[in-house]
Amino acid sequence: MNVVMLLYPNLTQLDLTGPYEVLARYKELTLHLVWKDCEPVRDVSGLRIVPTTSFDDCPQADILFVPGGPGQVALMEDAEVLDFLRRQAAGARYVTSVCTGSLVLAAAGLLTGYRATCHWLSLPQLALFGVEPVPERVVIDRNRISGAGVTSGIDFALALMAQLFGEERAKAAQLMIEYDPAPPFAGGSPSSASPETISAVKALTDGFQANREAVSTRVAAALKH
Amino acid sequence: MNVVMLLYPNLTQLDLTGPYEVLARYKELTLHLVWKDCEPVRDVSGLRIVPTTSFDDCPQADILFVPGGPGQVALMEDAEVLDFLRRQAAGARYVTSVCTGSLVLAAAGLLTGYRATCHWLSLPQLALFGVEPVPERVVIDRNRISGAGVTSGIDFALALMAQLFGEERAKAAQLMIEYDPAPPFAGGSPSSASPETISAVKALTDGFQANREAVSTRVAAALKH
Repeated sequence: MNVVMLLYPNLTQLDLTGPYEVLARYKELTLHLVWKDCEPVRDVSGLRIVPTTSFDDCPQADILFVPGGPGQVALMEDAEVLDFLRRQAAGARYVTSVCTGSLVLAAAGLLTGYRATCHWLSLPQLALFGVEPVPERVVIDRNRISGAGVTSGIDFALALMAQLFGEERAKAAQLMIEYDPAPPFAGGSPSSASPETISAVKALTDGFQANREAVSTRVAAALKH
Repeated sequence: MNVVMLLYPNLTQLDLTGPYEVLARYKELTLHLVWKDCEPVRDVSGLRIVPTTSFDDCPQADILFVPGGPGQVALMEDAEVLDFLRRQAAGARYVTSVCTGSLVLAAAGLLTGYRATCHWLSLPQLALFGVEPVPERVVIDRNRISGAGVTSGIDFALALMAQLFGEERAKAAQLMIEYDPAPPFAGGSPSSASPETISAVKALTDGFQANREAVSTRVAAALKH
């Protein structure tokens, strides 16, 4: 089975590297990292990952995966990327995302009428695209599977692997990566964080989020015509 | 502050990319990915990451970090790597690791007399090097900070950032990466996993672990002379 994972400039690398770590432990899966070309792609923090294939050479995905990150905003208006995703999705068994990757799938029209999740800061934007926003860590609706923000990719990947290859092997993968998380603080989600912490995050991201929402609004309006 | 993160062939990429995601959110830190040269380094599953600097050009670390993974076994007998780590550690404020990265630090003599942790499968090997093995997710002993297996790197990084820059900002980072983990199954650690799951993992790793232990035993004996 081919897993096609989209790489792109200014992604949030852990959205991709978390699921990659889980999926790589299944010998049935061949993981492809795809971008327009095979030059190293910089994540938003400067980590450079090398694609394994280009859009032109990429095999048909059995599992199509789109991570999120600030670079996602540009992808929503990139016809080459959206066309690639639509072509791949048409033949894929699963169409999946983590974090704001779901906004890219939505911009390609691939989540219309589905339930999905997203990073909490951007979750409401899914509704602009006719997608039902669900504030859960992993959301499965038919063959669309989405994870919430960044670190949820590990939970997402284990859930997907359990569905495909059974719980016992997913449990072994989980033990192999010692996934027994112990966050040092409460408050990793907006439902448990203090108002002060939520305000601090919003203050850091307000300008960026306003632009992201403006782009989502524009793309969603165009999608309806 | 310079964070020097060791990249090497056949590392487990999430050991590094998990902490990277947390640390990258602190503008006070400059992250360096270092190997012998600047060619892309393949992780054990084939993910290629590009170093930002070489041993020769690397600045002095304020935080020195070593991830784990199968490639760690070769590093334990690689004099160039061990010399680099010893030189860097001498001037570093923190000397840190995730997963079997602690065995590399131990092989360099940098954990002798300290408490530390490691991936659960390899934790007992620390004792060969005069290191006290501690079965906890994050272990802080003076300026040595270690995380347990793979995914513990996120907990490790948040704990380190809280120590350096305070809890409020660490909480904001945690909320930004939506770190509110929801493992789909219990059993992500050997203390909570079923005997069947533990057996399944051991069956997959027995041969590799036997060699890893043989190398640790040999390197530890040489270190004492």
